Amino acid sequence: MSQFDVLCIGNAIVDIIARCDEAFLVGNGIVKGAMNLIDAGRAELLYSRMGPAVEASGGSAGNTAAGLASFGARAAYFGKVADDHLGGIYAHDIRAQGVAFDTRPLAGGPPTARSMIFVTPDGERSMNTYLGASVELGPQDVEEDKVRAARVTYFEGYLWDPPRAKEAIRLAAAHAHAAGREVAMTLSDPFCVDRYRDEFLDLMRSGTVDIVFANESELKSLYQTASFEAGLEAIRADCRLAAVTRSEKGSVAVRGNETVAIEAIAVDEVVDTTGAGDLYAAGFLAGYTAGRGLAECGALGSLAAGLVIGQIGPRPRQDLRHEAGQAGLM
Amino acid sequence: MSQFDVLCIGNAIVDIIARCDEAFLVGNGIVKGAMNLIDAGRAELLYSRMGPAVEASGGSAGNTAAGLASFGARAAYFGKVADDHLGGIYAHDIRAQGVAFDTRPLAGGPPTARSMIFVTPDGERSMNTYLGASVELGPQDVEEDKVRAARVTYFEGYLWDPPRAKEAIRLAAAHAHAAGREVAMTLSDPFCVDRYRDEFLDLMRSGTVDIVFANESELKSLYQTASFEAGLEAIRADCRLAAVTRSEKGSVAVRGNETVAIEAIAVDEVVDTTGAGDLYAAGFLAGYTAGRGLAECGALGSLAAGLVIGQIGPRPRQDLRHEAGQAGLM
Repeated sequence: MSQFDVLCIGNAIVDIIARCDEAFLVGNGIVKGAMNLIDAGRAELLYSRMGPAVEASGGSAGNTAAGLASFGARAAYFGKVADDHLGGIYAHDIRAQGVAFDTRPLAGGPPTARSMIFVTPDGERSMNTYLGASVELGPQDVEEDKVRAARVTYFEGYLWDPPRAKEAIRLAAAHAHAAGREVAMTLSDPFCVDRYRDEFLDLMRSGTVDIVFANESELKSLYQTASFEAGLEAIRADCRLAAVTRSEKGSVAVRGNETVAIEAIAVDEVVDTTGAGDLYAAGFLAGYTAGRGLAECGALGSLAAGLVIGQIGPRPRQDLRHEAGQAGLM
Repeated sequence: MSQFDVLCIGNAIVDIIARCDEAFLVGNGIVKGAMNLIDAGRAELLYSRMGPAVEASGGSAGNTAAGLASFGARAAYFGKVADDHLGGIYAHDIRAQGVAFDTRPLAGGPPTARSMIFVTPDGERSMNTYLGASVELGPQDVEEDKVRAARVTYFEGYLWDPPRAKEAIRLAAAHAHAAGREVAMTLSDPFCVDRYRDEFLDLMRSGTVDIVFANESELKSLYQTASFEAGLEAIRADCRLAAVTRSEKGSVAVRGNETVAIEAIAVDEVVDTTGAGDLYAAGFLAGYTAGRGLAECGALGSLAAGLVIGQIGPRPRQDLRHEAGQAGLM
């Protein structure tokens, strides 16, 4: 009997969100739609140029954990904050959502990670992340009992940026597989894929990872192909299950010979795409760990992604279990 | 020639905003729709019971200053934050909006003020404010040159809660009137009116305040009457100009024998009423200091209030000058 449906592992980050125009991105050398890694000095500079902002707990896998809990799934989280004000906010928000979170905060090191997210009028978000305390996540933070108690252990590809998190992931994957559980990852970002392509492919081909989430750009980056279909066939061969999102074109899930196309939800206005992929994974995994078929898993993912892009910030304000019920999906 | 259209003075507060149900308010003894003052211990208790939240700079007069700047008006602000993380966020947000803000942060005292705002499904907000560093605002923070340079000095009735702010207001009002400027206030909250009824009436009747903003509940509380019409006639006699908001019933402005009724803007969904009164005052004063008639002032107020209640948080994400242009009001 599993105590948790999904354990999520990621960089624990507070988002600082403001709107800007396209010229601002160009003028400040920010790659649009991507996660740009920055150091403390550049963080200070960009903040001085940033417009009025709002703050909300984020982090890719943290958003997924919060989304899972909102769907009523049992979720846990590993991620490193500092023992500071933003860290307190982060811990509050994820626990208040019902996620089990006990990673010890970092004392005496860098501050809690933050990502300055600039949202352009088209709703696209461009992230500028100072990793701060989150880089200290390591094997010492892997709570074996939680890994063994979770049906799926899910982590973000972004964890290949800090130096020691990959050790934590390899350890967690070993515990998970020893307990007969599955391991999932998201490819996170096309540039992240470019930085760690060989390692990500090795994670899949070695069986360290069973389930992969990606968007179309990440898939194409992984296999260095311009063809979505070629990428899809390649990932079908490289992992047990993959779900690939395509923005307004919906998503496709592949598992062995099975292929399921899922429609996107119609959205009135795309306000802020932050969290779209994270919430798709939350919905998909909520369905998957409840034993649903791929079409239903994808529909739950589309529902959650559609809700989060209609608001500012990375975690939907709605009760996702209620929304799924209203949509006839739960 | 005036350097500023409006100088706003208020408690500098960061909002911590979460959703809750009606039972939560009852179970925690929170007066619905009101500003509840709390101490540090109760702040900690309520935060431990609060759901996942987002943080945004707030404070009634701060929201008005931000709204004025978004309308393209020249705004300044006096308010006390601490020399801490939330204080840095507050200063960033108001300056990034284009508001002149130079009040010296408090060192070695209580932390930056915060208000835990619980938003019920009907969109109503119930505030729980720990005043922290904001109580240290006093006469030493009144920058005489800015007061003299502002067409209107506007302050919040909430300033009667901390011990020394009222001295700052009396000093600022004296400087303003000596320079031939006008002084405006908002009554802030019906319970605040109940705490300081005689002092507020004295501010108006002594001519310390020229212009008064109120909502229907505050007006009725001020004159201890159940009749809106009776309240309106009383306030007409007590100040040079008054604007009274009535939620979906719009607003009424009175000045001498003049009476102007203004319609509310139709809103698809009331998400969060936080900031509605503050943004009404911003729109009204943006028009007033530009020499517009009362009907136009009120229409600008309704526009800004209608936009802020359609989103989470106290300051609209839209460019209000652009919105006013689109609506044919500027």
